[in-house]
Amino acid sequence: MNRIITVSREFGSGGRTIAKMTGEKLGLPVYDNELLAHIAENSGFSRDYINEKAENETLGGLISKSLSGLANYNHISAEDYLWQVQRQTILDLAEKESCIIVGRCADYILRDKADCLRIFIHADRSLREERIVSVYHDASKETPEKRIRNKDKRRSAFYNYHTDMEWGDPHNYHVCLDSGKLGFEKCADIICTLY
Amino acid sequence: MNRIITVSREFGSGGRTIAKMTGEKLGLPVYDNELLAHIAENSGFSRDYINEKAENETLGGLISKSLSGLANYNHISAEDYLWQVQRQTILDLAEKESCIIVGRCADYILRDKADCLRIFIHADRSLREERIVSVYHDASKETPEKRIRNKDKRRSAFYNYHTDMEWGDPHNYHVCLDSGKLGFEKCADIICTLY
Repeated sequence: MNRIITVSREFGSGGRTIAKMTGEKLGLPVYDNELLAHIAENSGFSRDYINEKAENETLGGLISKSLSGLANYNHISAEDYLWQVQRQTILDLAEKESCIIVGRCADYILRDKADCLRIFIHADRSLREERIVSVYHDASKETPEKRIRNKDKRRSAFYNYHTDMEWGDPHNYHVCLDSGKLGFEKCADIICTLY
Repeated sequence: MNRIITVSREFGSGGRTIAKMTGEKLGLPVYDNELLAHIAENSGFSRDYINEKAENETLGGLISKSLSGLANYNHISAEDYLWQVQRQTILDLAEKESCIIVGRCADYILRDKADCLRIFIHADRSLREERIVSVYHDASKETPEKRIRNKDKRRSAFYNYHTDMEWGDPHNYHVCLDSGKLGFEKCADIICTLY
């Protein structure tokens, strides 16, 4: 059975960087948001395929069922369609190979379907603000405080909407790590040790 | 400077056992609730001493000040007195030696006063129930569900009352570990690695 590492992370905590360091150490491919979106985009999943898949899944089934009361199965909303495509992409990846997946509720999606090590990375706000300025300083004109607030709010809302769990609740993860206090290298080492 | 490990833990998660295993591996003394109470009891801290100490501390000072409006300094409540004694005991221990302290808001008490590694241990409810039955089965006639609910509620209330932080919020700890999924030995190993 493939073994998967899922990494959930606060914005600016370095979760993606730690995932990449871990991937290099363990020789595992790392799939982040962008890469997952890219794969999903090119996967050619048709709406029919997704709807069919969705019917066989609890959450998807519920969506389809609730929608079917209002409209045709084929008129699943754009958000739900995207969610189903990304969800299916994650399930397919987990079936294909051992890997590391960053974000996208992968911990929840794979909870009963794969051998998962679930990680949550967080850090003090001040350290995250500093890091955002140094890493993303050209990308946005918003203040780092506002960017963190918005990004975390969106990640939390996304997670809470698509799962029945709470984002950042330690009970959902094998390990929660403070990347600011421990450093990225040590975080990656701990994940390797546990894997 | 002494280096302290603080271990907060859910009831039945094996936090104290993990602390003891870590203590043995690192050759550090481990102070749990009972031992701290015993030391405090025999420390001979007089109410005057505690009141005097309290005046020089933010939280204690606030308690004294708010009480002084109502009554004499010497009439600090039994709970606040006990809190101050245990608090002073923890501060004295941390000044005396490197050690591991289980519970009693030690992470908060020592936050600006010592070099601390802050750990939170949790586990699935079902595993905790099982463990409570096997470890404490003679000690109580309550159901394990009820014991866990009550104990966690009390620990959480104690922590939230005495600190301005939330018990079990991953941001308050360097590492949160799921002792049920990882096993006690691995948890102790991770703590040793980080120390």
